[in-house]
Amino acid sequence: MTMSKAKKQTATLGGSADDIEAAFYAALQAADIEKLMACWADEDEIVCVHPGGPRLFGLGAIRAAFEAMFANGSIRAWPEAVRRIESLASSVHNLRERIEILTNEGPRQAFVIATNVYHKTAQGWRMVAHHVSPGSEHEAQEVSESPHVLH
Amino acid sequence: MTMSKAKKQTATLGGSADDIEAAFYAALQAADIEKLMACWADEDEIVCVHPGGPRLFGLGAIRAAFEAMFANGSIRAWPEAVRRIESLASSVHNLRERIEILTNEGPRQAFVIATNVYHKTAQGWRMVAHHVSPGSEHEAQEVSESPHVLH
Repeated sequence: MTMSKAKKQTATLGGSADDIEAAFYAALQAADIEKLMACWADEDEIVCVHPGGPRLFGLGAIRAAFEAMFANGSIRAWPEAVRRIESLASSVHNLRERIEILTNEGPRQAFVIATNVYHKTAQGWRMVAHHVSPGSEHEAQEVSESPHVLH
Repeated sequence: MTMSKAKKQTATLGGSADDIEAAFYAALQAADIEKLMACWADEDEIVCVHPGGPRLFGLGAIRAAFEAMFANGSIRAWPEAVRRIESLASSVHNLRERIEILTNEGPRQAFVIATNVYHKTAQGWRMVAHHVSPGSEHEAQEVSESPHVLH
């Protein structure tokens, strides 16, 4: 994809925070770096933390990290059990990522916990933070007072 | 502290997102559960993830987890290298927590990575998400394009 095409895509990516999140995971699954980066806000302080990894700030550092990951193939990650805190121009999502990993013994599943934050910018809703950490020993464990408690 | 006193404190805690963050870490260091909980928004979907722990949703679940931690003493955690993404009513902070741990061989330091999200609510700025994960092997590692790069 040419740079002008990528820029056009960045400029025209629209929709809600949920739409941006869907586009983000679709881009991970397709190893499409341009579509992935189009989900992010163009701000110096946007932040990405992969499990056990360093803090990555800004489009350049984040892009380089995903390009290195995509060099090994796509990332088969699916968002699950999304919980949302929404305000007028901010949407904070906490979710489990179910990740399919190919091993010598065939595909295996792993779970991680992600906080994704979206801000409504002049360009529309964009991701400003993606913080992923190793899941707990009980892969689907969560605690709340809602009727959806999983013990 | 009585419940009515705690409620009054919750209602009157003011200041910026930075002020709430300072109050949050001061409460951790003092093992003061009322001051700690006064930093949080009163919403069902507020979320807290401790390193390797489950997702905790809502004031009740979050309070129970911190009460269990405070039963073992205060949490000597200091925020460092705070980076901020700010919009009108949302402030996303990513920081390192330097944690002092008492071992049989004396005090030791550990580092974790935290994303703290604050929303401006009807009660003022409040924490809505606190996601902490184990630090990278290089405790102070971070990557960015800013002049503050640490390699």
